[in-house]
Amino acid sequence: MENKKINLLMFSGEYDKALAALIIANTAREMEAEVTIFFAFWGLFLIRDPEKMTLEDKTTYEKMFSMMTPKGPEELPLSKMNFSGLGKQMLLEMMEEDEAPKLIDFLNGAVKKGVRFYGCKLSMEIMGLKKEEFIPELEVVDAKTYLQDALASDMQLFI
Amino acid sequence: MENKKINLLMFSGEYDKALAALIIANTAREMEAEVTIFFAFWGLFLIRDPEKMTLEDKTTYEKMFSMMTPKGPEELPLSKMNFSGLGKQMLLEMMEEDEAPKLIDFLNGAVKKGVRFYGCKLSMEIMGLKKEEFIPELEVVDAKTYLQDALASDMQLFI
Amino acid sequence: MENKKINLLMFSGEYDKALAALIIANTAREMEAEVTIFFAFWGLFLIRDPEKMTLEDKTTYEKMFSMMTPKGPEELPLSKMNFSGLGKQMLLEMMEEDEAPKLIDFLNGAVKKGVRFYGCKLSMEIMGLKKEEFIPELEVVDAKTYLQDALASDMQLFI
Repeated sequence: MENKKINLLMFSGEYDKALAALIIANTAREMEAEVTIFFAFWGLFLIRDPEKMTLEDKTTYEKMFSMMTPKGPEELPLSKMNFSGLGKQMLLEMMEEDEAPKLIDFLNGAVKKGVRFYGCKLSMEIMGLKKEEFIPELEVVDAKTYLQDALASDMQLFI
Repeated sequence: MENKKINLLMFSGEYDKALAALIIANTAREMEAEVTIFFAFWGLFLIRDPEKMTLEDKTTYEKMFSMMTPKGPEELPLSKMNFSGLGKQMLLEMMEEDEAPKLIDFLNGAVKKGVRFYGCKLSMEIMGLKKEEFIPELEVVDAKTYLQDALASDMQLFI
Repeated sequence: MENKKINLLMFSGEYDKALAALIIANTAREMEAEVTIFFAFWGLFLIRDPEKMTLEDKTTYEKMFSMMTPKGPEELPLSKMNFSGLGKQMLLEMMEEDEAPKLIDFLNGAVKKGVRFYGCKLSMEIMGLKKEEFIPELEVVDAKTYLQDALASDMQLFI
């Protein structure tokens, strides 16, 4: 699978969908395909650094939004059966029983394996999120750069 | 990006996902790629004309459904954190602070830029929605026409 | 459309999205394209055989999970407006008025038409679901096999 290229648009900010995206990305890297993930909207919360949240230079709405939204991968809810966190706890317990890695481990794996991390400029501006609040690997790009990368890829998914 | 072709299947009827779809579509048109959006199920509510809702020739269920569902782009809810409209209001305020266009502006932009609008015949029949209830650019097509267009495209997303 | 190949990743376990996936798959088969559906996470509940649920060899969490989740296609909820089943009932009534087939009919159609059914090994292990609990056509494969099939396809969707 050398010379193959995969582009994922990570729109949703949910634990289970993020797991799916990162498992696809990491498996593809192991097969030597190139992988870009473009994080837009809620997807950005997956690569937020929980220790770097800032409220500086933010409007009141942006501050409220920063505080109400998940801070990093382990805070993401499930896309269904979340039951205020109970369903997610259940999934985490089942993952532990199988000694499956956590979402944060898959994310660290993706960084190590050389997945490319693109962040949607417009989403970040609207939500008032700053580059410094994310993992350092994030490159901030516009929709045009996303599309160029996606159109140069052999496979594109909207997750 | 001339000669490139993009096909989006707009299934979900949510404000944030519709924004994502239309930003991709409009950016692609600016790069001179061809773009088709196929609206199915909930996605159809994005291109409903709020002033053309009719209850004529509809069964009781279809009438109820017509009344309970969003009438046009600005009535769509968020895919998460909607909080009965509060979360959406917050997003709209943040968009205004950045002078970002609204969903309806992106939709009008897409019409002007020549995005092709396909509506799913089967979804419309089941929900009892008539061609006259939509923006005039809508062409009603079946799943086969969607697939032919999608397979002739360089990139396909299910949104 | 001979020689064309389509790959769907069925992640969500919702009645309406499953309808969309199966209508695409069946229409593609009628056009003589090859179709693979890879069922992961919640998507697996679509191909669970309601009569083959077992609690044997499952941990407590896996047993709870098996009991709390939908048993087969007709138990799947809607992705929105489910209203504890009321919205789904309304959709089913509207489908019946149009004499549209049910989800289970589309699933049986897909089996007959030769759609390939892949099940995600990792999801099944985590959720404690056994091969015997699914329709017999299911082949259990890993993420690598999914990616090889997807990259060899002309079109890929994440549903």
